[in-house]
Amino acid sequence: MERVFNFNAGPAAMPEDVLRQAAAEMTDYRGTGMGVAELSHRSAEYDELHHRAMTDLRELLAIPDDYDVLFLQGGASHQFMMVPANLARGGKLGYADTGVWAHKAMEEAGLYGQTYTVTNAGPDYTTIPPDFAVQDGTDYVHITTNNTIYGTQYREFPDLAVPLVADMSSDILSRPVDVRKFDLIYAGAQKNLGPAGVTVVIVRKERLAQANTRLPKILQYRTHAAKDSLYNTPPTYPIYLMGLVFTWVKKQGGVAAMQARNAAKAARLYEVIDAYPEVFTGHAAKEARSQMNVTFNLKDRAAEADFIAAAKREGFVGIKGHRLVGGLRVSLYNAVTPEAVDALAAWLTAYAERKG
Amino acid sequence: MERVFNFNAGPAAMPEDVLRQAAAEMTDYRGTGMGVAELSHRSAEYDELHHRAMTDLRELLAIPDDYDVLFLQGGASHQFMMVPANLARGGKLGYADTGVWAHKAMEEAGLYGQTYTVTNAGPDYTTIPPDFAVQDGTDYVHITTNNTIYGTQYREFPDLAVPLVADMSSDILSRPVDVRKFDLIYAGAQKNLGPAGVTVVIVRKERLAQANTRLPKILQYRTHAAKDSLYNTPPTYPIYLMGLVFTWVKKQGGVAAMQARNAAKAARLYEVIDAYPEVFTGHAAKEARSQMNVTFNLKDRAAEADFIAAAKREGFVGIKGHRLVGGLRVSLYNAVTPEAVDALAAWLTAYAERKG
Repeated sequence: MERVFNFNAGPAAMPEDVLRQAAAEMTDYRGTGMGVAELSHRSAEYDELHHRAMTDLRELLAIPDDYDVLFLQGGASHQFMMVPANLARGGKLGYADTGVWAHKAMEEAGLYGQTYTVTNAGPDYTTIPPDFAVQDGTDYVHITTNNTIYGTQYREFPDLAVPLVADMSSDILSRPVDVRKFDLIYAGAQKNLGPAGVTVVIVRKERLAQANTRLPKILQYRTHAAKDSLYNTPPTYPIYLMGLVFTWVKKQGGVAAMQARNAAKAARLYEVIDAYPEVFTGHAAKEARSQMNVTFNLKDRAAEADFIAAAKREGFVGIKGHRLVGGLRVSLYNAVTPEAVDALAAWLTAYAERKG
Repeated sequence: MERVFNFNAGPAAMPEDVLRQAAAEMTDYRGTGMGVAELSHRSAEYDELHHRAMTDLRELLAIPDDYDVLFLQGGASHQFMMVPANLARGGKLGYADTGVWAHKAMEEAGLYGQTYTVTNAGPDYTTIPPDFAVQDGTDYVHITTNNTIYGTQYREFPDLAVPLVADMSSDILSRPVDVRKFDLIYAGAQKNLGPAGVTVVIVRKERLAQANTRLPKILQYRTHAAKDSLYNTPPTYPIYLMGLVFTWVKKQGGVAAMQARNAAKAARLYEVIDAYPEVFTGHAAKEARSQMNVTFNLKDRAAEADFIAAAKREGFVGIKGHRLVGGLRVSLYNAVTPEAVDALAAWLTAYAERKG
C-alpha cells in the first residue's frame, strides 16, 4: 500500500525517513545485536541516545541552562495533575479557558488549590482572548498554546507578574518560542515530537527548588530532574523515536525552518477556504487561526460525511473534526509534507469549483 | 551484526519474530498506508489492536470477567503510588519486604496509610519467607512475586483474609497464575510483555467500586476502566508491540508452555552452577530460586569483571549483577530462547572445567 496523506490530529504523521530508519534498526541498533526496545536503560548505548535527545531538544528550542528537560510518561493529561501538585503553594491557580483541554487541566487542579478562569474563550472557543484577569495571590497562570479541537493558537504570549505554565502539546517544536517567558512547558509527544507514550517537560530550576515535597516521589518533578529522567525505566522506544524526530527537525533547518514551512502549509489551506465562502466556512476567528489545525465546515453541513468519505478515497486521512465541534479538521504538524497539503488544497479547490 | 544472546534484566530480549513483524509494518500497518505510531487512537484500526491485546491477555492468564484489565503508563514505580492512593481505606498497609523494589513500593505508600512489614527477607534477600504477620485493620497486603535483583521468586501465594496485591513486573506471563488469589496485579511491560512504556493492571471490579474518589481523575483506576484505557491517549506503539508478544506467546502454546520452557531454561543454568561449587555460588536460597533471574557469583570474585568481558566477546550480553548485590545475573524471560541458554550453559561449563 502506498503511504496516505495523513492529517490525523494526534497521534499523527511521522517523518517517513524516521520510520524507515526505525524499521532498519529494529533488530540491531548500531551493531549491538539488539533492538532499541531490548537495550537496558542502564546501558551505554541507551544512555547515549537518551541524553542526545535531551541535548538536541535543548538546542532546537534554545532552552536556557537554568531549565531542566524531563522525559516523563502519562501524556498531557497526567501533567494536568502534576503541575498543580508540584507548583501550587496555597494560592490561587489561574487557567485560561480556551477549550476542553484547558478546562480539563483546570478541573484536575481543583484538588490542589482554588482555581479560577483568567480568560474565557467559551462557549464556542473560536478566539484567543488577549486579556488576562490575574487575581492577587495567584501561584501560576496556565495556558494551552494551541487548541486542536477548535483550531485556535496563541500568536503572542502574555507578560504576567506570576509564573506562566503552558500546555504546548500540539504546537511545540512547530515554531521558535522564548522559553524564558514560561516557568514550565509540557507536551505530550504524539503530535509534533513523535509517538504517544512520552511527555516532555521543560521547567525552570528555580521553580523546582520551591516545589512541594509532600507528594509521592514518582510525582515530583525533582525526582526525575535529579536523575536525568532515568529514576525509573523510561519509555525507551518512544524516546528513541522522538530522538530520531529531533534529528530530522535539525536536518530540516530547525524550528525556524519548520515555522516557515508550517506557515506556508496553513496559508495554502486557509487561502482555499477563504476563496470559496459559499462552500467553506472557517471555524476559528481569523486572528486566532492555528497553523497546526485548520478547522472548517462545509456550508452544506449535510454533505460532510460524503465529503470525508470522498477525501479518504483520494488518500486524505484524518480530516474529520473532533466530535465536540464536528465539521472538518486538517492537522498540519511538522511531519505533514507541503506536498500532502498541496494535494489536499488542489482537491478542495476542485471540489469548491464543482459546488460553487 | 548477528543478534546477540540477550540476558538483560529489563528492558530485555523480545521475540525476534515480533521485531521483524514490527519492522515490516513500520510504514504501513495492514494496508492503512500509515504506521501504528501514526494511527489515531480513536481509529478503527487502533481500536481493534488495543482491544485484541486486552482479549489475548485475558485468555492467556484466564482472567475472570469480574476483573478489569488496564493498560497504563509510568511503570511499576508509578503503581507504587496508585495502589495505595486508590485502595487505602484508612487502615494499615502490609508490605512483604523481599527486596529493594518491595521496599520502594512501601515507601511510596507511606503518604496514604500506616505501612508495616508483613514479612522480611532482608538484609540479604536470599529467601522468600512463607509466613505473613498480618495485623488487624489491614487494607491490603502487597507482595513482589519475583525479585529480579536477588533472583528469588514466590512458588506459592499466601491465602490471606485481606486483599492481596502483587507486583508481577518480572514474572507475569511466565507461568499460569490463579488471578482470583489477587485483588490487584500490576506489571511494567519491559520484561516479559514487551517494551518499556506500558503497564498492565488487573484489578477486581469490586475493589474498584470501593476505591478512593478524592484523587485526580488520571490517577483513579476507575477512570481508565470506564474507558477501556482510552480515557487519554494510550502509549499506542508500546501497546501494539505488547500485543504482538501476546500473539507470539499464544503461538508458543500459552503460559503453560512458557512455564515448561522457562523451568527447563532455569534448571539448565542452576544445574551448571550447582555442579561446580568450587567455581560458582548461587545467591538465592535453593527453595526460593527464581526461574526468571539466575543470580550467582564466582568464588573468585576478583575474576568477575574479566568473566563478564569474556562472556560479552562470546555474544552473551547483560549478565552483570545489579549494582546493589554485584556478581552475576542471567535473566531468562519468555523471549530468551532455550538455544541462548544452552549456549551459555556450555560456555559456563567449559569455564568451570578450566578453572575447577
